[in-house]
Amino acid sequence: MREVYVAGIGITSFGRLEYPLSEIAAYPGMLALKDAGLKAVDHLYVANMGGGRVNHQTALASAVIDTLSLTPAGAETIENGPASGASAIKTGFMAVASGVHDVVMVIGAERMREVNNLEATDFIATLTHPLAEYIYGVTLPSLAGMFTRLYMDKYGVTDRHLAMVAAKNHANAMLNPFAHLHQEVTIEGILDSPEAMTNNPFVADPLRFFDCCPVSDGAACLILATKEVAKKAKHPLVRLAGVGQATDTHAVHERAEPTDLLAVRTSAALSMDMAGVKPADVSVAELHDAFTILEIVESEEAGFFKKGEGHIALEKGETALTGRLPVNTSGGLKGKGHPVGATGVGQAHEIVTQLRGDAKKRQVKGAKVGFTCNFGGFGNNVVCLTFTREE
Amino acid sequence: MREVYVAGIGITSFGRLEYPLSEIAAYPGMLALKDAGLKAVDHLYVANMGGGRVNHQTALASAVIDTLSLTPAGAETIENGPASGASAIKTGFMAVASGVHDVVMVIGAERMREVNNLEATDFIATLTHPLAEYIYGVTLPSLAGMFTRLYMDKYGVTDRHLAMVAAKNHANAMLNPFAHLHQEVTIEGILDSPEAMTNNPFVADPLRFFDCCPVSDGAACLILATKEVAKKAKHPLVRLAGVGQATDTHAVHERAEPTDLLAVRTSAALSMDMAGVKPADVSVAELHDAFTILEIVESEEAGFFKKGEGHIALEKGETALTGRLPVNTSGGLKGKGHPVGATGVGQAHEIVTQLRGDAKKRQVKGAKVGFTCNFGGFGNNVVCLTFTREE
Repeated sequence: MREVYVAGIGITSFGRLEYPLSEIAAYPGMLALKDAGLKAVDHLYVANMGGGRVNHQTALASAVIDTLSLTPAGAETIENGPASGASAIKTGFMAVASGVHDVVMVIGAERMREVNNLEATDFIATLTHPLAEYIYGVTLPSLAGMFTRLYMDKYGVTDRHLAMVAAKNHANAMLNPFAHLHQEVTIEGILDSPEAMTNNPFVADPLRFFDCCPVSDGAACLILATKEVAKKAKHPLVRLAGVGQATDTHAVHERAEPTDLLAVRTSAALSMDMAGVKPADVSVAELHDAFTILEIVESEEAGFFKKGEGHIALEKGETALTGRLPVNTSGGLKGKGHPVGATGVGQAHEIVTQLRGDAKKRQVKGAKVGFTCNFGGFGNNVVCLTFTREE
Repeated sequence: MREVYVAGIGITSFGRLEYPLSEIAAYPGMLALKDAGLKAVDHLYVANMGGGRVNHQTALASAVIDTLSLTPAGAETIENGPASGASAIKTGFMAVASGVHDVVMVIGAERMREVNNLEATDFIATLTHPLAEYIYGVTLPSLAGMFTRLYMDKYGVTDRHLAMVAAKNHANAMLNPFAHLHQEVTIEGILDSPEAMTNNPFVADPLRFFDCCPVSDGAACLILATKEVAKKAKHPLVRLAGVGQATDTHAVHERAEPTDLLAVRTSAALSMDMAGVKPADVSVAELHDAFTILEIVESEEAGFFKKGEGHIALEKGETALTGRLPVNTSGGLKGKGHPVGATGVGQAHEIVTQLRGDAKKRQVKGAKVGFTCNFGGFGNNVVCLTFTREE
């Protein structure tokens, strides 16, 4: 199995974009080619969830490869719900590792502005179990709300901890020019002030408005390649050293312990094992905080903190930008935004930026090992990636 | 790069199926596990095009892996329009070849009965160029009609040749218990009889009703594995020896020579080169006859016949079941059916059945090398596979 490196990266602003989906997707590809000093690739994977449903477009990868003038390279669209991005990166990893291709472009892209919030919630709910959940009206916020209540009861997490995640990630997003939300959030403002119930109403008790990520458009790109190709780009060399994936029961209510996220636990361990690192070696992590509770739980399941103690580490500032393990330096899904198919690639973009030392005001000093957790379904299909900076 | 073998196969009947999409998809997976003598896999790829749009379901792969009780194996959905099936097989090939996984299940599935014929045509048209074709009302039959007229003018193909493809493939489908259409078709009946204009009206001049494949539900499965695993299944050993893929301009009108299908030519050559075989070595081929003209043109571009001479070979019976190179022994998309995401896997299922010597009344004697061409878009993203029987 050949080693796989990151040759180039690119990203759009996350937020509201005025272009068709295929153009949104192509743009960071163009940036990444420039970043890598390349004019051609062997293959393209496009991560996207809503093209067929929301944008009335299928075969998106064929449109993007043509828009970028990269034919006759092959191209496919990869879909794994909100984990589509990391799934596409994992697939690109295999293409290079196997020797089938030397240079593979991975783009994640989504354009969700076609739909209003109600339709967006229904669209995302199409990833729930078609026979055991969706037809009974389950949505992702409703699952997350029930999950959060259980977690609060079992481990002592409070609404204040949830608000801390929001405040931290919004603060990080302020330092990220590509983030969707450049809006400072304080615990006072969203929880304690007289206006809090108006500013921050319940979405799915106990989750409030500021516990939920926004609906965003956006795209990001990673070019994966052999070491030889990546070296020519003259960036600090970043290796995609570990890929891990695991599934869990599709219906959340079928899990033996519904507060465990076994797919996160397994995929994180697989990814770090392949990379030959331990949780304590990780310098910076992007976790999938579609809801604030998820950042806390994933930080435990990935092995950074003991089960049930993620909120304590958060409280102590260990996951802050200046902490022992900065989490979601990009702003996370909460602050940076969540263009569904783009999210996993956007997470990887942030980690590569950090490992290259290019993250400017949000740079984690001496970052050498980076980790991403991209969470599909309600934890039924999770993909984790481990990146290392070569000395 | 490790060699990749077929450990097990399974298929549903193609046609009208009464089950939800996730159940249709899971069924051949169960059959393939039994065929392979396996109880677990390392990964699942599901090829599907219309889940999000037609069936209101995303993250299909997560639903299928759960339905089959194959968690915690990872799973993704792969979409490349009508070539999704072969794209998923190519991706599975890389997963095994790279050493990331030892046993990979590939399922292609589609359930299109939610939509009527008009909606189905619009759904398929979502794969055309979003800015240069779709918004102007282009559909796949309209593109195929114009392409056929050009081909007739340039190479002397007649409506009689098109009808020969339909008659041949319907005859083959009569011998395939899994085929959608068990309906004998004669050139007399669809072209020469007084009722022909009623029975076989124009869809997109010069293409008539019997030049177009049906709208089908269905699913098929291949389990790809290392030689060690595949040997244990005790079937004649079939190797996936070559995978090739190529793209062309997304908009058909941008091609220098619109009667050339360069993506077929390139992907076929790549696939056979990797397998170390030449077109003359191929014993049996499944070509993507969504429209009858495509079988003729693909048989040329794949190198089986000279450009412009495919219809002459057809006329001579060279592609008949008893000919030098039987094409579409399964009945093809025309007779077997075209459940879009399933088609490429269905083609591979037929080839493996032939190479194992299990095709009964439609068996090609001594078949040793099999070839499939799965055609995405209107030839803008094509995946070809070459299978060999080990002695």
